Amino acid sequence: MTSSEHDHAGSDQAGSVTFLGLGLMGHALADTLLAAGRPTTVWNRSTDKGADLIGRAARRAGSAGEAITASSLAIVCTAHNNAVRELVQPLAAELRGRTLINLTSGSSSEARGISDWAAGHEIAYLDGAVLAVPDGIGTDEAAIVYSGDKDAFDQHNPVLRRLATPTFLGNAPGLAALHDVAVLGMMWHILNAFLHAAALLQSAGVSATPLTPVLEGGIATTTGWLADYAEQIDAGVFPGDDSTIATHLAAMTHLIDESGAHGVSTDLPLQMKAIADRAVAEGLGQSGHAAMISQFRSPE
Amino acid sequence: MTSSEHDHAGSDQAGSVTFLGLGLMGHALADTLLAAGRPTTVWNRSTDKGADLIGRAARRAGSAGEAITASSLAIVCTAHNNAVRELVQPLAAELRGRTLINLTSGSSSEARGISDWAAGHEIAYLDGAVLAVPDGIGTDEAAIVYSGDKDAFDQHNPVLRRLATPTFLGNAPGLAALHDVAVLGMMWHILNAFLHAAALLQSAGVSATPLTPVLEGGIATTTGWLADYAEQIDAGVFPGDDSTIATHLAAMTHLIDESGAHGVSTDLPLQMKAIADRAVAEGLGQSGHAAMISQFRSPE
Repeated sequence: MTSSEHDHAGSDQAGSVTFLGLGLMGHALADTLLAAGRPTTVWNRSTDKGADLIGRAARRAGSAGEAITASSLAIVCTAHNNAVRELVQPLAAELRGRTLINLTSGSSSEARGISDWAAGHEIAYLDGAVLAVPDGIGTDEAAIVYSGDKDAFDQHNPVLRRLATPTFLGNAPGLAALHDVAVLGMMWHILNAFLHAAALLQSAGVSATPLTPVLEGGIATTTGWLADYAEQIDAGVFPGDDSTIATHLAAMTHLIDESGAHGVSTDLPLQMKAIADRAVAEGLGQSGHAAMISQFRSPE
Repeated sequence: MTSSEHDHAGSDQAGSVTFLGLGLMGHALADTLLAAGRPTTVWNRSTDKGADLIGRAARRAGSAGEAITASSLAIVCTAHNNAVRELVQPLAAELRGRTLINLTSGSSSEARGISDWAAGHEIAYLDGAVLAVPDGIGTDEAAIVYSGDKDAFDQHNPVLRRLATPTFLGNAPGLAALHDVAVLGMMWHILNAFLHAAALLQSAGVSATPLTPVLEGGIATTTGWLADYAEQIDAGVFPGDDSTIATHLAAMTHLIDESGAHGVSTDLPLQMKAIADRAVAEGLGQSGHAAMISQFRSPE
């Protein structure tokens, strides 16, 4: 901790945390910390938000600058990073020596840009991505991933643990944003596969509710393979012990045929098959599924 | 049980089960039942397979017909349903009054065809799909889904429970095959999303192994939503309480942009976005994600 940080920490209201932005997620974050008994200072551009928090002992600052000086830690969560920049850039002097954690969804390049700005003003910066819906904040299921200043992560860990399970991903500030979109991509894939399956079974008279446990079982089984596949990817060795790409490819035609026969869209399985076809054409037919990572990497 | 079935059951070697086909999966099935102490008769077209089972008290039948008459239940598992037809059709007389369970991967129309043939010869028929790898057979994680003759499912449940967790899906014989491809589709989506994520993070210097727990968390969170989404699909009501399709669509552009910026394939997220774009164009922007099932159903 620098002497400058120490001075500011000394002016804290016994470990107060400041929240800038009280949208759905910002509100859930502040609410959770308040419920845990932590002194909380809140500020939102429009003052119609957060009235219920004030009623429960949160302190509403008169300005964003006043909010920042009330705590050694400021957590900002707004609609997008342009709003974050507009908010924090005029407050560099107030933020100097403090920690700024940005939980706004955005790109890795935006995170790098804000991180560079913060470094230039001696502001400890962590970029975070909330891998949870607002209702999940404060529960065991919620996760928030962070990247950037490791010391800031360690120092504020007691606060971060209250919000969600915190994971530090590395010093590169863009890592949280990258993991965020990776998780979202997984989410959309699962949801789309679920909708495709539901449409297929619905066409055979089966409703989605009894289908779901069968799919959940398949998800659990597949999830159990990922750690091994990760090791294969990191080692660059893709044994076809469990199943080869050629075998997967043959089974993909079943999904395409069933979809077509039941009048359901074949777009998703045709795309899967196209990827597997290209992998086989590159000589990967007898490798395991993870060898298809070559199809997702940039062309050389 | 018909009198014909009863006659055959009386000739059983104390509840013997016959396995036709000793490929990787057939062998795992027979091996598991044998390990559970169940008298087991095996037959395979080529006799080089299953020698280790014979050494462990399985009885090898001299012909498929002899194998069938040794048990009230015959379980067939071969490479494809053409092989099943070639095998069982000449043995209609031997199978009459017994139960035939077909665990060969195939299409729902193939299952219907074999079921119709079996019904015409008074053979109780169950079509099954093994939702597990051979190594998983006999463990809690393994599931086998069945469709067709419910009485046969109930009668042989003690045997089926030994192989894997059995689920009866309905009388329509094609349901197991349909669920099978639905689960496979989910599997491929998860694996492809995993590969895409691994390629994206690798381009930022992160290996797949530390990425995996973050993705596993996202999978668990998403899986937790499916039961609610299934209810929405069955009710045809898609509230946008948690997140709207318009919000998802905006976030999909982040995944496309990050992929492009890191030189990783944008094929998968572009396809997701195209589906969401069509849904928004149809006026579903303020509905929840499950409303996109309209994009997977057949055009009217």
